[in-house]
Amino acid sequence: MARDDQRALQYEQTLMYGRYTQELGAYAKEEAARLREEGGWRRSVKERSRSLELLEYDRGRCAKCRICTVRCQKFLISRVGEDWIFLILLGLFMALVSWVVDFAIAICLQAQKWMYGGLESNVFLQYLAWVTYPVVLITFSAGFTQILAPQAVGSGIPEMKTILRGVVLKEYLTFKTFVAKVIGLTCALGSGMPLGKEGPFVHIASLCAALLSKFMSLFGGIYENESRNIEMLAAACAVGVGCCFAAPIGGVLFSIEVTSTFFAVRNYWRGFFAATFSAFIFRVLAVWNRDEETITALFKTRFRLDFPFDLQELPAFAVIGIASGFGGALFVYLNRLIVQFIRKQKTINKFLMKKRLLYPALVTLLVSTLTFPPGFGQFMAGKLTQKESLVTLLDNRTWAKQGIAEGFDYIGNSQAWNHTQVNVFVTLVLFIVMKFWMSALATTIPVPCGAFMPVFVIGAAFGRLVGESMAAWFPDGIHSDGTIYPIVPGGYAVVGAAALSGAVTHTVSTAVIVFELTGQISHILPVMIAVILANAVAQSLQPSLYDSIIRIKKLPYLPELGWGHHEKYNIRVEDIMIRDVMYITLNCCYRDLHDVLLTGHLKTLALLESSESMILLGSIERVQLQALLSLQLGRPRRLEYLRDRATAEKKRLSMVSHPGSEDGSQRVNQEVRFQISTEESSFSSTPTPSMKPLKPALKRSSVVDRPPDIPMPTSPQDHSGNTLKNLFCVNPETEGLEDDFDVDDDMTIREIAEWEENQLDEQVNFDNCKIDPAPFQLVERTSLHKTHTIFSLLGLDHAYVTSIGRLIGVVSLKELRKAIEGSVAVKGVKVRPPLSSFRDSGTSGSSSSNSENEATELHKLWDRHKSMSLPREHLASDSDEKSQ
Amino acid sequence: MARDDQRALQYEQTLMYGRYTQELGAYAKEEAARLREEGGWRRSVKERSRSLELLEYDRGRCAKCRICTVRCQKFLISRVGEDWIFLILLGLFMALVSWVVDFAIAICLQAQKWMYGGLESNVFLQYLAWVTYPVVLITFSAGFTQILAPQAVGSGIPEMKTILRGVVLKEYLTFKTFVAKVIGLTCALGSGMPLGKEGPFVHIASLCAALLSKFMSLFGGIYENESRNIEMLAAACAVGVGCCFAAPIGGVLFSIEVTSTFFAVRNYWRGFFAATFSAFIFRVLAVWNRDEETITALFKTRFRLDFPFDLQELPAFAVIGIASGFGGALFVYLNRLIVQFIRKQKTINKFLMKKRLLYPALVTLLVSTLTFPPGFGQFMAGKLTQKESLVTLLDNRTWAKQGIAEGFDYIGNSQAWNHTQVNVFVTLVLFIVMKFWMSALATTIPVPCGAFMPVFVIGAAFGRLVGESMAAWFPDGIHSDGTIYPIVPGGYAVVGAAALSGAVTHTVSTAVIVFELTGQISHILPVMIAVILANAVAQSLQPSLYDSIIRIKKLPYLPELGWGHHEKYNIRVEDIMIRDVMYITLNCCYRDLHDVLLTGHLKTLALLESSESMILLGSIERVQLQALLSLQLGRPRRLEYLRDRATAEKKRLSMVSHPGSEDGSQRVNQEVRFQISTEESSFSSTPTPSMKPLKPALKRSSVVDRPPDIPMPTSPQDHSGNTLKNLFCVNPETEGLEDDFDVDDDMTIREIAEWEENQLDEQVNFDNCKIDPAPFQLVERTSLHKTHTIFSLLGLDHAYVTSIGRLIGVVSLKELRKAIEGSVAVKGVKVRPPLSSFRDSGTSGSSSSNSENEATELHKLWDRHKSMSLPREHLASDSDEKSQ
Repeated sequence: MARDDQRALQYEQTLMYGRYTQELGAYAKEEAARLREEGGWRRSVKERSRSLELLEYDRGRCAKCRICTVRCQKFLISRVGEDWIFLILLGLFMALVSWVVDFAIAICLQAQKWMYGGLESNVFLQYLAWVTYPVVLITFSAGFTQILAPQAVGSGIPEMKTILRGVVLKEYLTFKTFVAKVIGLTCALGSGMPLGKEGPFVHIASLCAALLSKFMSLFGGIYENESRNIEMLAAACAVGVGCCFAAPIGGVLFSIEVTSTFFAVRNYWRGFFAATFSAFIFRVLAVWNRDEETITALFKTRFRLDFPFDLQELPAFAVIGIASGFGGALFVYLNRLIVQFIRKQKTINKFLMKKRLLYPALVTLLVSTLTFPPGFGQFMAGKLTQKESLVTLLDNRTWAKQGIAEGFDYIGNSQAWNHTQVNVFVTLVLFIVMKFWMSALATTIPVPCGAFMPVFVIGAAFGRLVGESMAAWFPDGIHSDGTIYPIVPGGYAVVGAAALSGAVTHTVSTAVIVFELTGQISHILPVMIAVILANAVAQSLQPSLYDSIIRIKKLPYLPELGWGHHEKYNIRVEDIMIRDVMYITLNCCYRDLHDVLLTGHLKTLALLESSESMILLGSIERVQLQALLSLQLGRPRRLEYLRDRATAEKKRLSMVSHPGSEDGSQRVNQEVRFQISTEESSFSSTPTPSMKPLKPALKRSSVVDRPPDIPMPTSPQDHSGNTLKNLFCVNPETEGLEDDFDVDDDMTIREIAEWEENQLDEQVNFDNCKIDPAPFQLVERTSLHKTHTIFSLLGLDHAYVTSIGRLIGVVSLKELRKAIEGSVAVKGVKVRPPLSSFRDSGTSGSSSSNSENEATELHKLWDRHKSMSLPREHLASDSDEKSQ
Repeated sequence: MARDDQRALQYEQTLMYGRYTQELGAYAKEEAARLREEGGWRRSVKERSRSLELLEYDRGRCAKCRICTVRCQKFLISRVGEDWIFLILLGLFMALVSWVVDFAIAICLQAQKWMYGGLESNVFLQYLAWVTYPVVLITFSAGFTQILAPQAVGSGIPEMKTILRGVVLKEYLTFKTFVAKVIGLTCALGSGMPLGKEGPFVHIASLCAALLSKFMSLFGGIYENESRNIEMLAAACAVGVGCCFAAPIGGVLFSIEVTSTFFAVRNYWRGFFAATFSAFIFRVLAVWNRDEETITALFKTRFRLDFPFDLQELPAFAVIGIASGFGGALFVYLNRLIVQFIRKQKTINKFLMKKRLLYPALVTLLVSTLTFPPGFGQFMAGKLTQKESLVTLLDNRTWAKQGIAEGFDYIGNSQAWNHTQVNVFVTLVLFIVMKFWMSALATTIPVPCGAFMPVFVIGAAFGRLVGESMAAWFPDGIHSDGTIYPIVPGGYAVVGAAALSGAVTHTVSTAVIVFELTGQISHILPVMIAVILANAVAQSLQPSLYDSIIRIKKLPYLPELGWGHHEKYNIRVEDIMIRDVMYITLNCCYRDLHDVLLTGHLKTLALLESSESMILLGSIERVQLQALLSLQLGRPRRLEYLRDRATAEKKRLSMVSHPGSEDGSQRVNQEVRFQISTEESSFSSTPTPSMKPLKPALKRSSVVDRPPDIPMPTSPQDHSGNTLKNLFCVNPETEGLEDDFDVDDDMTIREIAEWEENQLDEQVNFDNCKIDPAPFQLVERTSLHKTHTIFSLLGLDHAYVTSIGRLIGVVSLKELRKAIEGSVAVKGVKVRPPLSSFRDSGTSGSSSSNSENEATELHKLWDRHKSMSLPREHLASDSDEKSQ
């Protein structure tokens, strides 16, 4: 059921990244229906467990041991419910997955090397092997992912960010996606393309957590809690990064920075606990597998401890930081450019969409051709895998020593950087440039892949380049007092890696990740400085890679407030709110409801006490209102009316009988006509439409938007039931045919229209309607900054702006997004009265003091009330007025 | 003005920690008054700046360069407003402060050593010098702090936690406190007592930020924003830790864990930026001062990189973690026990309160006597300062090698640990035990001091003890494959330090601090495991040290939800809310207002539309209502009434004249009587009482609580104005005497009472009343967990529980605190209906779907409305009812 493809948030498969088209409201409706269905099932489970409890009172003697067993079982189950057991299981499982994936990737890469090595006699065969292998793997990965679960494509961090924001993307956390992601990722990385495993691992860990909590909810009721699941997902993100890099602290911080807007400190320990356990197991597996002697860092460096760097080298580190900032912004821009370019080229896009596996194959072919070691690859260390290049780049020896020895003896993998004809600087530059666009291109392939690791390696290469230049420039180091401390280019590589990956992801915690990856923290200050500078530059130029993908994928997410945009503090809700709010009143008639539903497209409508008082009582979903209206105008009710009328008439006069042949034919016509419209809109007519399977309801919006083939009323008198039924996708006929009814539906269209007119004039009965009684409220003076905070804190979709209970406007995510993205900031800022800033000095959340406005608003309210209530004291009222 | 002692949140100076007695509401009122006063001043400043702008249109030629200057100035000022400039200034300033304080402390400690060393000939003189020096310094510190700013006492982290929670403790952020804290801290640490500088530095950094933003608000309007100031304070806390330990990352994380409940990720960079800059400058100063050769860690270790520890050592690390957890809890308990013991002993307390400096002196005497090196101090390395002991404890050499050489050659400070008669293990055990209670005792001294560093050192000693034992047990290391890797006890010390300090403060980020302090991250996994275990143990036994102090000081703070208490998910707001809400209605008369004010003590009252509809319109502060009532019954209005009556009477009949001698004498009596009551309550009678200097208003609560000497009404008929005036502290006579009025107040008491009765029957005019139009609302089904989240997210004080606009209850911090602390959890949990968990499945914050309840509630509402509105269609209503 939950794995139905129709359940997907109308995920549109595009060439590279997918796109979302379904509105959230419709999805929420679906979800509610599903949950209600599940509710019944769960109830039956609970009843079953209750029957077990009754065992105790069942039999006297023989049941004693059974009771004991049941109790033990209960105790164990209650223990199983504890957070830490969940986290340990999650950590353990993720460590195993990470290790197995790493192992499989290593084998894949080894196989490629072995093939390439075995064919050394023939360059062409060698090339064929070098190229075919990754193409096959990537194509398989892309195909497998697309068949099994297209949601597994890409990094997963943007989606997790959206999910942790409160938006339910349920199809992202299914078992199918898990399988597709793990296998797809293994194949993709095994191909040797410049892709990373970090983003996907965040997603995989979240999948694990979701599946695990689903599994554990079979034991107890705790796992059903929504907020707890969100907490566990946040911890899972940390586990994902933690077990990928064996970096628990960096993992926690990175996952917080990347996925959260507001972070609950009480969840902190969960992330640390799970990530530490996971990283521990991950490294222990390596020890047990005899890969390592003991638990150490993944890319251990051996820089000298006593004098890691000189104070005068700091400008070079700062340069790395600033350049990385520009580079990071460029990377994000390039990545988006590629996606947008191919999306825009309609013909290419169409062609590639038809042959979906062609694009991945072509990209892989291009990249692997260029890295072919005997070909161009020899100038850019194409022989090395990502891991090998990183290890060599972080080497603590210097490659280029001016003066002493040009030809440093490169041992092992470092040899790949040494070319007989070309300088090591040229190799590095070529490596950086080629890998840069290759990574940007490769991450657009629709396979599970991340961009963190490729960027990290490019950053390390850039740092190394600067470091080697510095070492060539100052062969004896910069330090002037006695001892010679040569420059360590490996340290520069560390700084560059942290800076570039920080710039691309807009995070500071890459600094911590780099320390945990290298096992050395001696370069902490240069790294911090470079990362902060890189972030400063990159954040002012481009969104982060994940935000960029969120925009490409059109995920429902609220952008961040930028770096210190002060004007944001001066925009008020009243500047951005929509004043013309669609609302319904408690005593409105169905006609009003109908008019409101016809004109607006909002997902929820405000419920007011009356249009005079404008007092906000709550909000109702549009769907609920549509159900109300369709119930009122539906065939069942009309038949009931007919039945009543027939009974009444039968009693009074039983002489005339209408054979109704003409009406009958008309009815058939009508039916046919309705059945035609059914194909487009087969909305059920039950009072709670969400109870039914809702696949066609997804198309509702197109129906509300009046498709041209259905004639629409032009005058208000023309609200005929047929139109209404089309509008609200009601098809009573098809349903009614199954019912056994005793009255013939012998009404003419005119009669129906008349009856409907009468029905529309009735007052609305909100009895069976679900109302949100406390929609979030803001006041006009709430600043944009505060509004953004509240929206992101509480995961709001819209908020009503009220003034002493009176509705005066509404702000939705859209307005907020617009305001933040600047369209309002330029033209919308009003000149504030001199004391406006003073009004902000209140401390509590939504209760900023805005006396002036309220005074007048209240005045009106009070006047209204005074006029309604009887004046009690005429004697005092005279002096009362004077004192005002 | 702001430095007035009366402005303090009624801080009660007690022996060790202070206590807060004032209610927040009263303080908020005061603040509002002050801000309004400032408002006027600020407006004048703005007007002045506007006049500068007008210069441009002033003169033609000569003013050109002046305009240019003004523009340049403006540009500079606008730049000054940027966040990063603020943060750089803050970081720079704090680094300087930290360095200067460190320098001064080092000089102080050197002076003591020098004195002690110079008097080696005479042990008694030596003892005198050793003891007198710290006693004098501590006494001076305590005296200085108490005279200048008693708020500077203690750590400051609990207060910062409270401030960041949204509670304004303004007297904590004044210049006086800054001076007192810096000088007090220097002296206290210079005495060599086991005290830390970390907590106070968090406070000092926050002080700096507050003062700096006050200073910079002179340039522009940005710094006036409240939420921005909170953001800056959060960054300042990070700077405090960062520049204290030169640990930017650990500083940011520690400050987040210690001060925040919810952390805005967008503030993250601020903390990192400022803390990095600050740590950088702090270390650069050391390089410039030739203390260091280059920028390195504060307590640099030199453990081997290639094999930091063996996998089989992990159980020992886990033992350190668990033991540290118990130790940390014990430390917190001991600290609280000492405070409570001395508070309970009335006689001791009284005596010590009189001679305030005696307690610090006595404690210092005791501690320094015990550490006297030739005395007991020789068995516990009493000679070493805190810093020296930490350095020696983190030494990478092993002290006790079994078998090879019992007497390891201790060089330098390590010699202090070596005693000719006693084993090094005994020295360590004695050091741990003695320092443990000494630190717990010393942190209760009323001087600016933290507990982090002493605990850190004790933890390091404990770790060292375990490490040395391990080294003695396995002299050749545990590793079995070929190479011998001896055990590194220094690594154990690192683990122990992180674990114990983590346990005491309930933080995980001590792990990061320890890496940054030592400059090595190789022990990351043992440290993480130990810290997490220590936290798990400590958090289940005791609150953190800071939370414990918050309770001791009675700061207004919301406790955290504990580790995975699942039952918290099942408590609903309806289980804990107060159903009997005090409210006023929009059309109520003054008598209702009076009754409500008489019966309740709530700070804010709900404003409803009417008592039938119960629709919540907003909330009004009690003070506002009191002002309304006193305005209505005040003398000015009565005089006006008299004047009106006199005019009317004069017109109609101008024949009788009352000399009113009897009334006059009665009036005098009355005045005297009022003046007596004035001494107790001299509340001003203006419509906005908060406009006046409000010192006496602090005593308001005692007046409302009906002091016995004022007779209270027993029957509802007895609401005489005199009582009212006493109740609301109105003293119109004393004010009225200054006024020039043309009518004699010749009313008898009976007449006044009658007039007041009439006045009370008038309808309340809310025109000039400040109303919060959007108080926070919850629904009955909101879970405790969600409520806690919302309260801590938005810093709420209370929230109304509504059902479709109708007020049905109220929840305040008190109820929430009670519920969290368990009194409700035990008895208050109701048996939930089977589908109750389903209701939670909604995603948005306060809009959990609770259909059943609303349906019935709405039904009532709707019935009411239906009965009021005219039935339009009788024909259809029949079928309507049937279908329900």
